[in-house]
Amino acid sequence: MQTQRQQQQMSVVTLGVADLARSKRFYVGGFGWRPAFENEEIVFYQMNGFVLGTWLKDQLAADSRREAAPSSGFALAHNVATEQAVDETLDRLADHGGRLMRPADAPPHGGRRGYVADPDGHAWEIAWNPAFPISPEGYVTFGL
Amino acid sequence: MQTQRQQQQMSVVTLGVADLARSKRFYVGGFGWRPAFENEEIVFYQMNGFVLGTWLKDQLAADSRREAAPSSGFALAHNVATEQAVDETLDRLADHGGRLMRPADAPPHGGRRGYVADPDGHAWEIAWNPAFPISPEGYVTFGL
Repeated sequence: MQTQRQQQQMSVVTLGVADLARSKRFYVGGFGWRPAFENEEIVFYQMNGFVLGTWLKDQLAADSRREAAPSSGFALAHNVATEQAVDETLDRLADHGGRLMRPADAPPHGGRRGYVADPDGHAWEIAWNPAFPISPEGYVTFGL
Repeated sequence: MQTQRQQQQMSVVTLGVADLARSKRFYVGGFGWRPAFENEEIVFYQMNGFVLGTWLKDQLAADSRREAAPSSGFALAHNVATEQAVDETLDRLADHGGRLMRPADAPPHGGRRGYVADPDGHAWEIAWNPAFPISPEGYVTFGL
């Protein structure tokens, strides 16, 4: 089959969660985000050009036909506008059920970042990276 | 600390990979995506409003201070424009180092979808979901 160029698009990131209320405390209370939809098994957040879903992990496992297991192998990032917002955001997320993985410091490529795990162990890097422009709508462009 | 409303923004999804050439075969050869940047440890793809990074898993582990482990606990999704494109895309990805997790069928919420794991085990749902509008730029809006 010939390779075609397909839209460089990801529609949804779905994170498996054990307890929706505990997860919401982190995303709604910590990040201050508002759900676009929620019911007793899933919460969706409208993000910058895609959708974040937090879904009961047994249901995600059944849907994807892979056993539920602790989160591993990847990391998500949220960029903030100032250096000091990195530490403030990490603190706020830790106060809302997050677990600090790495306190903020300066990475080799510049800026400032730390890592926090959400209550289900999903890793979030909180970063200030002036090389990545962010539009008012939140669209992020790769930069060096 | 008072909760502030923060931009509902994710800047980067970083996937740990064992072998960049093997991973590129899936993303460049299978999806037909073009890197925005690559060196011997990372490949970045400009996506719809954020950046996808595929980074050597030992480096991601060191940076996030968590041991490298097989991918689990989450799924990504790529939406396509037609029902038949679901099967075609799953086939093409399986031909480029992916492993079919679930053949395409109709989920309870409608549309059509299947799951394929990339060569590092990162789960991708390939979906046709008419309820989620996608702009020409690839920006995806939550819909029901």
